[in-house]
Amino acid sequence: MLTLNKIKQLKSLHKKKYRRIEKKILLEGYRIIDQAIDANSEINEIWVTKESKNSDIGKRLFEKINKHNITWNITSNRIIRQISDSLNNQGIIALLPIPNYNKLSLIPEKSIYLDGVSDPGNMGTILRTAAWFGIKSIFRSPDCVDPFNSKVVRSAMGAHFYFLHLEKIINEDFWTTLKKSDIEILGANTNGTSIHSLDLQKINKWCLILGGESYGISNSVKQFITTQIAIPGSNTIESLNVSIASGILMSHLS
Amino acid sequence: MLTLNKIKQLKSLHKKKYRRIEKKILLEGYRIIDQAIDANSEINEIWVTKESKNSDIGKRLFEKINKHNITWNITSNRIIRQISDSLNNQGIIALLPIPNYNKLSLIPEKSIYLDGVSDPGNMGTILRTAAWFGIKSIFRSPDCVDPFNSKVVRSAMGAHFYFLHLEKIINEDFWTTLKKSDIEILGANTNGTSIHSLDLQKINKWCLILGGESYGISNSVKQFITTQIAIPGSNTIESLNVSIASGILMSHLS
Repeated sequence: MLTLNKIKQLKSLHKKKYRRIEKKILLEGYRIIDQAIDANSEINEIWVTKESKNSDIGKRLFEKINKHNITWNITSNRIIRQISDSLNNQGIIALLPIPNYNKLSLIPEKSIYLDGVSDPGNMGTILRTAAWFGIKSIFRSPDCVDPFNSKVVRSAMGAHFYFLHLEKIINEDFWTTLKKSDIEILGANTNGTSIHSLDLQKINKWCLILGGESYGISNSVKQFITTQIAIPGSNTIESLNVSIASGILMSHLS
Repeated sequence: MLTLNKIKQLKSLHKKKYRRIEKKILLEGYRIIDQAIDANSEINEIWVTKESKNSDIGKRLFEKINKHNITWNITSNRIIRQISDSLNNQGIIALLPIPNYNKLSLIPEKSIYLDGVSDPGNMGTILRTAAWFGIKSIFRSPDCVDPFNSKVVRSAMGAHFYFLHLEKIINEDFWTTLKKSDIEILGANTNGTSIHSLDLQKINKWCLILGGESYGISNSVKQFITTQIAIPGSNTIESLNVSIASGILMSHLS
């Protein structure tokens, strides 16, 4: 049974401050909980409505939940709605610890650096795409949206549980370390070399910088780029969405 | 001055039914209005707050607005908030007619078919990406979200004004006509041929089918696919977001 205090505590996890204190996040919906279990993340507890548990997709998921001995409780629609921050919640919520990521020591051969990506949907989609392409190291500037924001987590569809690094970079040493390790530092730029003339598959060690929606890559980071790359278009429209650009670049790099 | 009746009429355009009756849509924000002017769409009228008009970006935009002799009015923040359906509106709204698209007669050499794409953000991003790659013909199944939904329009960033076709397909004749015209009908499928082994740039005439978020390409449409294509991944995560997959495929096709 969920006490009022517990409900309040769970709801507080929609705020960055409390996620930091509790070191926990909520997952909402069947698919992402399913993905979290597949990635062996240690779920503390699940709350579900009777209807959601007895739906076809719910039944399949609960076979897995029971196999992994995860604690679950039936609760009311009203309470799920209170805890959820999604208007279209699916009647199932899980509580779990924020994954433990490695501190940067060994330099990864392939990584993404998010520079001021402030839209949660864009960040989540980039994380999901990175996980799809097997990229395990994500770095981010301090002005990015919190990667554990519930909208980021929802759009990332479980990607958070596959990464080795998801680290905030506050020191310029990061860039000199990459350069010393012969990592190609790639930045998307309309004036760069076309992805069709550059053989990206031949670049084995790279860090791809993705700029924010409004201002692109910041000046303080631009100086570290070793290769500017461009996705040629038809000049009909000003720009590509950053998550789309990231998907195209990762696909050409892989 | 905006009368109460006019405000009511403008607000009604957030509903599909009234967009159909009035044949008009609203554009919200600087960038998309800018793009609409660049694409020579005929804007009926613009409402803007004093602050938004006098901002740096506002001043630049209003030079263009005045050059094109577009009618504009200063209005209050309160009224813009009433009309807007965006929480973070930028204090500027334009009213314009839904573009006139061609009826399908000549078969386009490159087109996108949206099959049950129900998320407005995904549809808008796909439209934006298609316009980027110079694709001018978009077809859609009847169960897609309305392409003039304000969230679709916002995410599409002006793409609507570049298309020749944006047509709902209700008849299977569409597919037989494509086949007769030797158009390759491409469908993304995890069991398909990898985009790395298929030379997509060599396919000159194609229609790319993109399935909805939950169910993928529907069975009634699957039968018309002539080539199944796959975006290889690392098997860490279940799927790519449909708009990301569309961007990757369009990039490899262009």
